[in-house]
Amino acid sequence: MATQHAADEADIRRQLDKLIEAIRAMDLEGLKPIYASGIVSFDVGPPLQRVGVEGKCLNWEEAFTVFQPPIGFEIRDLTITSGGDVAFGHGFNRLSGTLKNGSMSSGVWVRATFCFRKIDGEWLIAHDHASVPLDFASGRAVLTLEP
Amino acid sequence: MATQHAADEADIRRQLDKLIEAIRAMDLEGLKPIYASGIVSFDVGPPLQRVGVEGKCLNWEEAFTVFQPPIGFEIRDLTITSGGDVAFGHGFNRLSGTLKNGSMSSGVWVRATFCFRKIDGEWLIAHDHASVPLDFASGRAVLTLEP
Repeated sequence: MATQHAADEADIRRQLDKLIEAIRAMDLEGLKPIYASGIVSFDVGPPLQRVGVEGKCLNWEEAFTVFQPPIGFEIRDLTITSGGDVAFGHGFNRLSGTLKNGSMSSGVWVRATFCFRKIDGEWLIAHDHASVPLDFASGRAVLTLEP
Repeated sequence: MATQHAADEADIRRQLDKLIEAIRAMDLEGLKPIYASGIVSFDVGPPLQRVGVEGKCLNWEEAFTVFQPPIGFEIRDLTITSGGDVAFGHGFNRLSGTLKNGSMSSGVWVRATFCFRKIDGEWLIAHDHASVPLDFASGRAVLTLEP
């Protein structure tokens, strides 16, 4: 059981390594096989949710339009919990690089949750949630926090 | 296997029913047994994360100070995926009621992710994530979206 958990966690980390590589390369085709077909995504920007791989990739397309390639992408403090054919992970993501207007962006730390299903032997992201906190008093997002 | 999934999903929905009841009653002591001791919470407001049941309850205390009891709390479009001793769910939450200043708040729809571990036969929330989307251009939260 402990061995199976360790093997599952290693597989999931490899999937997230693929995600990181594909994002850095702005490679939408490389991203698609990491997501389950019915993924429900709650992303940093609107809408409330997007459903399906094409919907999820719209989020990435929007993020990629802001930057010149290549972009920086990192995940910090990643913790994974797996059991049977379901797993979840959470950590902090940051996208950074040179914006289309030429200015540098060191990026914003975003809270990230990844929920996985093991489908035909492969761990795929079936749900994800990424956000920044909201300051209720001002209605503004809090963009300066560091993990 | 299908029967086990159905039983697990029913148990998880019962736990979330307890959560809904405790929130409506602003009952912090009723909320605590629903969370795993090491819960990592990414909540709507700052900070980036809070860890542990006491940390999680700070979030609820802050939310409760804004309202006069009783408050309204609902979860819409809840979907649960379980496997072995790990599960995740996602949906949309809304907190509403009469504010301390006497005005009515119909509330804001929040995207909510719940990640569970089955510990000693009980499904407990080990990680949660609640947020509203960010409008990147203005830096403001988008508070008017409905599921």
